[in-house]
Amino acid sequence: MNEYEVIKKIFLPLSIRKEYSLNLDDDANLLPNKKQIVVCTDSIVEGDHFQKNEKNSLLIAKKLLRSNLSDLASMGAEPFGYTLNLSLPKKFGNKKLINWIKLFAKGLKQDQLKYQIELLGGDTVITKGPLILSLTLFGFKKKKIIKRSNAQNNDDIYVTGNIGDSGIGYKILLNKLNLNTKLNNFYISKHKLPDPPVNFGKNLCLLANSATDISDGLLADLNNIITSSSCGATIYIENIPFTTYTKNLIKKKKIDINYLLTCGEDYQLIFTAKRKYYNNLILLAKKNFIKITKIGKIVKGKKLLILDKNNQKLSFQNLGFKHF
Amino acid sequence: MNEYEVIKKIFLPLSIRKEYSLNLDDDANLLPNKKQIVVCTDSIVEGDHFQKNEKNSLLIAKKLLRSNLSDLASMGAEPFGYTLNLSLPKKFGNKKLINWIKLFAKGLKQDQLKYQIELLGGDTVITKGPLILSLTLFGFKKKKIIKRSNAQNNDDIYVTGNIGDSGIGYKILLNKLNLNTKLNNFYISKHKLPDPPVNFGKNLCLLANSATDISDGLLADLNNIITSSSCGATIYIENIPFTTYTKNLIKKKKIDINYLLTCGEDYQLIFTAKRKYYNNLILLAKKNFIKITKIGKIVKGKKLLILDKNNQKLSFQNLGFKHF
Repeated sequence: MNEYEVIKKIFLPLSIRKEYSLNLDDDANLLPNKKQIVVCTDSIVEGDHFQKNEKNSLLIAKKLLRSNLSDLASMGAEPFGYTLNLSLPKKFGNKKLINWIKLFAKGLKQDQLKYQIELLGGDTVITKGPLILSLTLFGFKKKKIIKRSNAQNNDDIYVTGNIGDSGIGYKILLNKLNLNTKLNNFYISKHKLPDPPVNFGKNLCLLANSATDISDGLLADLNNIITSSSCGATIYIENIPFTTYTKNLIKKKKIDINYLLTCGEDYQLIFTAKRKYYNNLILLAKKNFIKITKIGKIVKGKKLLILDKNNQKLSFQNLGFKHF
Repeated sequence: MNEYEVIKKIFLPLSIRKEYSLNLDDDANLLPNKKQIVVCTDSIVEGDHFQKNEKNSLLIAKKLLRSNLSDLASMGAEPFGYTLNLSLPKKFGNKKLINWIKLFAKGLKQDQLKYQIELLGGDTVITKGPLILSLTLFGFKKKKIIKRSNAQNNDDIYVTGNIGDSGIGYKILLNKLNLNTKLNNFYISKHKLPDPPVNFGKNLCLLANSATDISDGLLADLNNIITSSSCGATIYIENIPFTTYTKNLIKKKKIDINYLLTCGEDYQLIFTAKRKYYNNLILLAKKNFIKITKIGKIVKGKKLLILDKNNQKLSFQNLGFKHF
């Protein structure tokens, strides 16, 4: 199969409205814009964001798509389509490459149905280095964009879902932690297949003042919110949502709470909202079958204060993942 | 300098209208859309699209931007902004990396002024592999989109500029050809710094029936036009535009004409238009200080026929660069 056949046979079925993708035939594609468009882009690298020689390209496709969906969810936007840049390693050889791409496209197809989005265009290159995949996701602006920089004094701080599952999965994959098979699989699946609250996010725009997704770690991403909003935050360790399994691991000192708050790739949302929206938020979360938890408050000043159950300050040397 | 400082100090000055880039502060950005938007995306890889350890990141920035501008020009669209995905190699170390990025941003800035475009958003990752850069360029649809698949029987076939200069420069860089210093520099600069006819392209939409840019080689890209338009083409070798230098090299048998028609990365346009638009096209080209040359005709059938000055058929084993 040559490049032309790969595009026509494997990727063209992922394009739904050919009047915008132009049958993936051209040097560019159109966007079906009726409203203002929100764009985000994310790259993942073999060996960093997923394991070297990972054969399950179905999971890689979904993780790439979902990390971008998580970004759009944090903006309160409604995703509709994406373009792809695939940098494929020479080492694969043709047959292996085609199988890899087929499984990759299968993952995209499943998630296209789940999230009601479609492929719009892209580009492919062959490289001597590791596999690198970039995805640019497009969404419509809803009534308002939720900015990271708009947290207001006295806002409540919420997170969706549970924190740290992905980071525990990553430790297990690196053989730095070993639990029983059931738990190992649970955490690894949380790491390999995040489930960002896309439908919740796109309805959040009239309720939240600020938001971001937790990709670099809860503390680092909360710190991004208060830095760009010029305010401080106080959060309560006791209120951070963990699964029952994780609570047990903390109790047994098998995992450090510091790690859970800084390990990143949760792809949950952290957002701030006026107290008066509490009931609306709980209702919206219920409607979308997700959990939200109030973990603290936005305060004056510029500090991020982390308090334990006795209201004692905890200090963290490192707030989370830094790209460089 | 950490990632946050790099974004704020080096890249934020490249964003002009902060209401769309959101100060590069958020997980996504907006597009300033009043019209329908055309999107293209391109990746370049160290060692493939530019030399390994190339220090002149100013040129890399411009080549990346211009290869995308070339794509939009071939669609007849008007570029307005772009997002970036940088996969930066670990091997650089922090200081070298920052200097590399600064020079890269300088190149972007110069071309932003030249082409009246701006940075809208992006993503950065650090990788163990080679440098990979992806750029997604956005443009407004003008009155019509020029598709690759719309060549009509009896259309004239045109190319802009000259063919093969970039390919000769590439051979010189690989030490497979050596001319005098002046000529070496001329061809290398054509390879490192393409100059796609952006203003010409964005005014072509009412004149051309079909178009693409010459990235994979004149024959390969013309073949893409006739394949997707279900037609044939006849072109005349005598009419292909070469610089006087190149004509000399052909005469002295220092370079093979086959190579010039298949080497790619010309970033000129190849387009087809009704005969009656000849004068309009010449005028449009003059206005934009570029050369256009009629090299043949679209015909019935599905064959690409290449004729020499005695109307004898030439055959080419390879039509041009294949990605895989």
